Amino acid sequence: MPSRFVCFGEVLLRLGAPGRQMLLQSPQFEVFVGGAEANVAVSLARFGHAAAQVGVLPDNPLGAAAAGELRRHGVDTRALATGPGRMGLYFLTPGAVHRPSEVFYDRAGSAFALADPDRYDWPALLAGVDWLHLSGVTPALGERAAAAAIAAAATARRLGVKVSFDGNYRPKLWEAWRGDAPGLLKQILANTDLLFADHRDMAVVLGTEFNEATTEARVEAAARAAFAAFPGLGRLATTLRTQHSVDHHALCARMVSRDGAVCATGSHEIAPIVDRIGAGDAFAAGVLHGLASGLDDGAALNFGLGAACLKHSLPGDFNLLGADDVAAFVHQGRFDVRR
Amino acid sequence: MPSRFVCFGEVLLRLGAPGRQMLLQSPQFEVFVGGAEANVAVSLARFGHAAAQVGVLPDNPLGAAAAGELRRHGVDTRALATGPGRMGLYFLTPGAVHRPSEVFYDRAGSAFALADPDRYDWPALLAGVDWLHLSGVTPALGERAAAAAIAAAATARRLGVKVSFDGNYRPKLWEAWRGDAPGLLKQILANTDLLFADHRDMAVVLGTEFNEATTEARVEAAARAAFAAFPGLGRLATTLRTQHSVDHHALCARMVSRDGAVCATGSHEIAPIVDRIGAGDAFAAGVLHGLASGLDDGAALNFGLGAACLKHSLPGDFNLLGADDVAAFVHQGRFDVRR
Amino acid sequence: MPSRFVCFGEVLLRLGAPGRQMLLQSPQFEVFVGGAEANVAVSLARFGHAAAQVGVLPDNPLGAAAAGELRRHGVDTRALATGPGRMGLYFLTPGAVHRPSEVFYDRAGSAFALADPDRYDWPALLAGVDWLHLSGVTPALGERAAAAAIAAAATARRLGVKVSFDGNYRPKLWEAWRGDAPGLLKQILANTDLLFADHRDMAVVLGTEFNEATTEARVEAAARAAFAAFPGLGRLATTLRTQHSVDHHALCARMVSRDGAVCATGSHEIAPIVDRIGAGDAFAAGVLHGLASGLDDGAALNFGLGAACLKHSLPGDFNLLGADDVAAFVHQGRFDVRR
Amino acid sequence: MPSRFVCFGEVLLRLGAPGRQMLLQSPQFEVFVGGAEANVAVSLARFGHAAAQVGVLPDNPLGAAAAGELRRHGVDTRALATGPGRMGLYFLTPGAVHRPSEVFYDRAGSAFALADPDRYDWPALLAGVDWLHLSGVTPALGERAAAAAIAAAATARRLGVKVSFDGNYRPKLWEAWRGDAPGLLKQILANTDLLFADHRDMAVVLGTEFNEATTEARVEAAARAAFAAFPGLGRLATTLRTQHSVDHHALCARMVSRDGAVCATGSHEIAPIVDRIGAGDAFAAGVLHGLASGLDDGAALNFGLGAACLKHSLPGDFNLLGADDVAAFVHQGRFDVRR
Amino acid sequence: MPSRFVCFGEVLLRLGAPGRQMLLQSPQFEVFVGGAEANVAVSLARFGHAAAQVGVLPDNPLGAAAAGELRRHGVDTRALATGPGRMGLYFLTPGAVHRPSEVFYDRAGSAFALADPDRYDWPALLAGVDWLHLSGVTPALGERAAAAAIAAAATARRLGVKVSFDGNYRPKLWEAWRGDAPGLLKQILANTDLLFADHRDMAVVLGTEFNEATTEARVEAAARAAFAAFPGLGRLATTLRTQHSVDHHALCARMVSRDGAVCATGSHEIAPIVDRIGAGDAFAAGVLHGLASGLDDGAALNFGLGAACLKHSLPGDFNLLGADDVAAFVHQGRFDVRR
Amino acid sequence: MPSRFVCFGEVLLRLGAPGRQMLLQSPQFEVFVGGAEANVAVSLARFGHAAAQVGVLPDNPLGAAAAGELRRHGVDTRALATGPGRMGLYFLTPGAVHRPSEVFYDRAGSAFALADPDRYDWPALLAGVDWLHLSGVTPALGERAAAAAIAAAATARRLGVKVSFDGNYRPKLWEAWRGDAPGLLKQILANTDLLFADHRDMAVVLGTEFNEATTEARVEAAARAAFAAFPGLGRLATTLRTQHSVDHHALCARMVSRDGAVCATGSHEIAPIVDRIGAGDAFAAGVLHGLASGLDDGAALNFGLGAACLKHSLPGDFNLLGADDVAAFVHQGRFDVRR
Repeated sequence: MPSRFVCFGEVLLRLGAPGRQMLLQSPQFEVFVGGAEANVAVSLARFGHAAAQVGVLPDNPLGAAAAGELRRHGVDTRALATGPGRMGLYFLTPGAVHRPSEVFYDRAGSAFALADPDRYDWPALLAGVDWLHLSGVTPALGERAAAAAIAAAATARRLGVKVSFDGNYRPKLWEAWRGDAPGLLKQILANTDLLFADHRDMAVVLGTEFNEATTEARVEAAARAAFAAFPGLGRLATTLRTQHSVDHHALCARMVSRDGAVCATGSHEIAPIVDRIGAGDAFAAGVLHGLASGLDDGAALNFGLGAACLKHSLPGDFNLLGADDVAAFVHQGRFDVRR
Repeated sequence: MPSRFVCFGEVLLRLGAPGRQMLLQSPQFEVFVGGAEANVAVSLARFGHAAAQVGVLPDNPLGAAAAGELRRHGVDTRALATGPGRMGLYFLTPGAVHRPSEVFYDRAGSAFALADPDRYDWPALLAGVDWLHLSGVTPALGERAAAAAIAAAATARRLGVKVSFDGNYRPKLWEAWRGDAPGLLKQILANTDLLFADHRDMAVVLGTEFNEATTEARVEAAARAAFAAFPGLGRLATTLRTQHSVDHHALCARMVSRDGAVCATGSHEIAPIVDRIGAGDAFAAGVLHGLASGLDDGAALNFGLGAACLKHSLPGDFNLLGADDVAAFVHQGRFDVRR
Repeated sequence: MPSRFVCFGEVLLRLGAPGRQMLLQSPQFEVFVGGAEANVAVSLARFGHAAAQVGVLPDNPLGAAAAGELRRHGVDTRALATGPGRMGLYFLTPGAVHRPSEVFYDRAGSAFALADPDRYDWPALLAGVDWLHLSGVTPALGERAAAAAIAAAATARRLGVKVSFDGNYRPKLWEAWRGDAPGLLKQILANTDLLFADHRDMAVVLGTEFNEATTEARVEAAARAAFAAFPGLGRLATTLRTQHSVDHHALCARMVSRDGAVCATGSHEIAPIVDRIGAGDAFAAGVLHGLASGLDDGAALNFGLGAACLKHSLPGDFNLLGADDVAAFVHQGRFDVRR
Repeated sequence: MPSRFVCFGEVLLRLGAPGRQMLLQSPQFEVFVGGAEANVAVSLARFGHAAAQVGVLPDNPLGAAAAGELRRHGVDTRALATGPGRMGLYFLTPGAVHRPSEVFYDRAGSAFALADPDRYDWPALLAGVDWLHLSGVTPALGERAAAAAIAAAATARRLGVKVSFDGNYRPKLWEAWRGDAPGLLKQILANTDLLFADHRDMAVVLGTEFNEATTEARVEAAARAAFAAFPGLGRLATTLRTQHSVDHHALCARMVSRDGAVCATGSHEIAPIVDRIGAGDAFAAGVLHGLASGLDDGAALNFGLGAACLKHSLPGDFNLLGADDVAAFVHQGRFDVRR
Repeated sequence: MPSRFVCFGEVLLRLGAPGRQMLLQSPQFEVFVGGAEANVAVSLARFGHAAAQVGVLPDNPLGAAAAGELRRHGVDTRALATGPGRMGLYFLTPGAVHRPSEVFYDRAGSAFALADPDRYDWPALLAGVDWLHLSGVTPALGERAAAAAIAAAATARRLGVKVSFDGNYRPKLWEAWRGDAPGLLKQILANTDLLFADHRDMAVVLGTEFNEATTEARVEAAARAAFAAFPGLGRLATTLRTQHSVDHHALCARMVSRDGAVCATGSHEIAPIVDRIGAGDAFAAGVLHGLASGLDDGAALNFGLGAACLKHSLPGDFNLLGADDVAAFVHQGRFDVRR
Repeated sequence: MPSRFVCFGEVLLRLGAPGRQMLLQSPQFEVFVGGAEANVAVSLARFGHAAAQVGVLPDNPLGAAAAGELRRHGVDTRALATGPGRMGLYFLTPGAVHRPSEVFYDRAGSAFALADPDRYDWPALLAGVDWLHLSGVTPALGERAAAAAIAAAATARRLGVKVSFDGNYRPKLWEAWRGDAPGLLKQILANTDLLFADHRDMAVVLGTEFNEATTEARVEAAARAAFAAFPGLGRLATTLRTQHSVDHHALCARMVSRDGAVCATGSHEIAPIVDRIGAGDAFAAGVLHGLASGLDDGAALNFGLGAACLKHSLPGDFNLLGADDVAAFVHQGRFDVRR
């Protein structure tokens, strides 16, 4: 039974070096389309849901190509408008072994960031929708984008559309315009049902440090603090990542609700990583799919973690795997060639 | 002292996605030539033997390219005829980490499958030959191919040409035409000297389950059952593969003969795998080389296992390494740059 | 405070197979510029020093391209002259798993090897310079190159320019012209301040075997023997490499001085290796940077080892990372995406 | 004012050699999605119309990729179903100078050709639609596809949906199943409003030779004969192509209606051609756009010819240019860089 | 006898589609470094002069790569500073046949445009220099860049450094900030010795239309008007381009001085064009080389035209050919393979 | 009725820049196998003849790859031995428009050039052979290669094997060792039946200038002089090439025999050229095929010219087209897509 999702956020182009080269070591960029919320939209569409992306792109071939790529993967792009401004870009130097990957953004002045928040007719955009998904990248882009995200969440709450919010705290973006991160994020969290965040995100929002002994305890404490601060909030979920090297991580996950907490069934070793970017978005999409499909919290979390793990095997920002692929990994975990 | 080998089977084109991408994630296919028996032929030619491929290809540029590629690697293609029908293709989505590689065949209606079994003049094709190599893929392709394989094995036995047969059980191919796998395979096994198979292959042929406690015991039991059922059969060899992840396997091997059994010297960790396809064929070619070169069973098995391991380091279906390369790995196992 | 370095040696083109293919498995070469001393020059330039390459290249597009590539990465190429002869090439088959990488040289008759040793005006080339860097590849190229290297070292010593020498013993090159390796190398070592070499290199030079129980002890003994033989020598440094497989090495390092010895802080696991070539040169450049920057021996060694480790993450012969990147790895070792 | 179009036909993958190489001269295929009717659909979508593709694709990654590519370019793929059978392929050796390009089809047994004609619910598929576009490729694929095309045209006529039909006579396809081309094509033409065909196509359908002195006269005579045979037919349009070499063609166009005939304004020299495939489909889409947009016959023909010319400048089967691009060429014809 | 040149302007990255594809038709950009003045600098360096680029780049890997590329081709980049702001980009859709190439700029907010004009110490930068080269792109980038260009020209005139100015009128850039093009350009022209411009450029500056019957007459009239308006101006040179199609242009050139005018020896047909971008800059560099080398006006113009023609044969913005290559074309015009 | 050919000469690797780039403008080489005589062998094999290549290659992966490539295209490589020395290379900068392609050889010290002429057992190699093909490149490589070519021709004449010789005069190769070109070439021509040469080649051999008014007359005079000097010579054939630009040539051909002369039917315009290298070898192979197949001189010449023209359409040194393709061009000259 597919659900209806709306994702709101900036669609970006990733320009990256091929192989494991340094940026422009050879004169070529591999291009992928991404953006935290668009990644979620693509994944949900691949899982069989009706997923629409809302936002603004420049009226040029780059914007058109980005929208086309979302459409290709099944996302409804009818609410992706065009407007003045440039295409948001980010540049990736893919890392290896002990050399971390490096991302730098080139998204200032983007059509999305410049868009008037009043141009979004939220009641119309959210009519008949089950879930609205937002992320902390959007309010970090500037006053206009923040206002739009806040309005979207408020309208959703008013209309009975559930709100999913992924913290995605990006200090550099906030610093660039000296935005009031805690103040703006609180306005979104006030209308959020499902929050993807860990203790560090919550520390930013609430101004509290979480110094419990273990990561699990810190996440638990942060969740409880969040529940206290935001009465409408129902769940907080997060992956827990250990980095042995750039190519070798381990991933587990935890979801806390008002009446309990679940852990994913075990931690997964991921090596060698093909592309780590978008794994958090794949996790969010997986958990959303699980909850929207009626799985219990534990099963939804495992599905989300499975999706996050599988994302590491794919070049690009999108998790292109279907729900069957994720389920096969979660339930069987067979690794030989399928013929 | 080189030996003379004839390999009979379908030559295929592999169309795969570059990097670790999904199929057609970007609009390009990398092409390799393969086919279980052709892989063995190439490997044997690289080991210095006279290896000929027998079969039928379409009379178009794809068929010509496939034959040319075999010739390039030293295989005698004079007995690769052309006939009506299409080129057999298979498509590969290369996997990574927890995402298994996926192969789907597009070989229905191929020139090889459509070829009249009477077109092969086996006494002429096998004159002066030491070994005939077949695999279970061929009878799985349909009545005609099965009849040809059975006739080849029978003629070989009659002429004193030793027969090597690699089980390669492919359920989907058999199901597509509801072929009588056990019945047809038995006719080949009746004339087989050296069998590459494990307990699961033998279960299909003999209709018996092998439930011994360990894999080694199951292989042993299956071999004994095979020796009982097929009086002409002399040896059964198999690799034993453990899959930690898509990129990390461990491989050992076992060969059972009527008067004993040998294990390879230790198991090899293989990570990160470059291309796992064709490893079984590299193993078969390695064992054949060992036996044909007068090595004892243990040394032949180690050589086969070494060849199988090294195949994982090479893109494509073929093991392009020479006998010296395999011997260097088996005997020294040095891993730094050779200058 | 940048220092001034002169590197003297042959600049080569590397022609390698893409991916992990065999040479000419597909009809393409990826090209990188390299050469033991040029690799050091590039790395030092990236670390912020003034690094000049001295040598001779052919007067053709290959020579021009090689010089251009050095210039691109910040090396001063004004002393890279042109002369009769060909471009030195080397061909690389990149290995994987259990299949070692293979290099073969095609540098006979190169413009560098043919260059008259008298064409180098060493007093002018070394005026105002802090360090001269040489390697054992140069004397191995033939009488003329050996004479030039010996003259360079002698002039440097005379002018108070410190001399760094990397053993880089290449038996095949010496054998090609039956050069007297010990005799010629001794003439360079007599004027060397900092020697990159291990016990095997010293065995060649001194004609002594070092059979101590551990590698550490052998290196220590070799260093002491070197100090005894060459009164001007101050330090001997080397990496210690363990090869688990072609893709997985472990690296630590040791530096011995007349009054002590230091070990790097721990050994680093490197997997999966992107490109191992040039790691030794990256180490030399790192140690030189450390010493030239006033670090103590331990810190300089750790910096060198960090540079060597990071080089494994980059395609090509050059270590393109900056001093900050190396310091970040040495001091923090964080592996997640930097945004 | 956009119109609504439905295109019915097989969607294919084109696998071609890169550059101007022979097929598999190097081991790679460049992949494009095509198919006569899908090419029209993409072009119409790019011109701003609502264009839907109807058909059947295999339920595998190739079928999914093909549908995704149509969606990417704005085609409505909700009526692209999946069914048993394989993906239709065609292989292209791109020609040059005096060496003609070569196409061979590998589409036997495709999901489209095997699809039961009853699975298409034409009244539903055509509800509210302005134009149905078909081509002569579809009935050439076999009895089932022919029946479906005939039913589609008949339903369209009955519902007042205009029918556009592009002759696209492919003798090899008809011969493969000995289909009654004239008989089946007549059933479609009986319900056609706008026919893309020349005198050779009409000769096949009507069994008459057109031997007038000039091509223009033959086209005129063929059109008049078609109007006589098919009372519902309103217009016949065709390009007229002269081939100076593989890379240099000249193109003009002619449209005949019951009450007159128009010629395009002049002939266009096209050199050097980038990719000629799909130019006829671009022409059909251009004429359809012109007529649907209310242009008179001459202007619609010029627009169609402009679209056809521009298609030659683009790799792949699709004409990806917008109506503004075509208009700019038709009305201004400026060739310098647009900044 | 090499001269010393300083070029001042923005260095850009060009991101273009491969082959003749539409932008992002496949997910890849080919990257070239360019910029009107940098193109001149590279060409002059290739002709053997000392050429330095002055400007500001962002302090990120893109800026570093751009500077490295200039250095690779022999340009002195010591006066290329870094500063706040982004990298200037432009996107190129390469055209073909009747489809014009399209460039769109993404350079707003670049480090160069944001740079404070006071940061350039022109007396120091121009000390000992023979020529300063500027173009009309720089003042079009905004108030700061315009002020810097004006100051540069004024300082040069004061110091006796000759000033070369290439009109390069880009209406879209001026419109973006409503800059007073005539007013600002006049301040540069007042100090210009050699002007690359045609009658359209002069119409913008002087506010006069030039309606003479032929292009030659209009250029002549514009030059005379320029000489009248700017007493220090010595010469005006321009190419005259006829566009038969996107791939086929014809090029001739004219230079007017106070005491006469010269035409290039004949017009050159250029087909098929590989890359037309940068041809004007190659012309400017060629004329500058000719004049700086003491050629008379006719020979300098022919050299400039030859350089412009040859640029069309090379991918990228730079003319990488040497003075000998240009001379060989101008004087011999042989077209067969040189061995 | 296929004939048996032996081609003797050096097999080379071509390393070229991709696209129309300068050498190493981007860090990649495209690799093709070539060599004047090997090109003829491949073409003859493609035309259906038995063609063997005789020569010596280095015992390394480059030599093995070159032999494999010949085998792939149907050439018998059993007489391609290995020996000491390096692989002969040549580097190609592909030209365009007015910029000529540039080749430089890097073949000094090759295994072929170093091979002892006594290692070729010509009576055995030529047993049962119809034609021996040689070219002027071989004697130009040095004393040993010259001796081998002279011995081959003499043995052939003695055994009744016809000798075909292609002048291919390469001044730079002769100058490198100051070889006596006229003296050595005469020894080969004394045993030649069919000579591919023009008046410039004959001027070198005979020391006479041919100053007739037209090229045709000069070729005629040169042929008559050759017939006078070499009594065994039966025919002289040559192409006549006009170069409008690097991308546009025109080609016709002429063959003179003792009793007459024939011209090809018309001249062919070739534009835009894909790859001109190997066209002369394609011509030689075409004429040889024609004569060996019993065509009259005119038809053989037309076939040769057709093959030469078609070669220009193909990347690489080899003409990969079959006899049917050539005949289709010669007899029909149709240029549209073949389906």
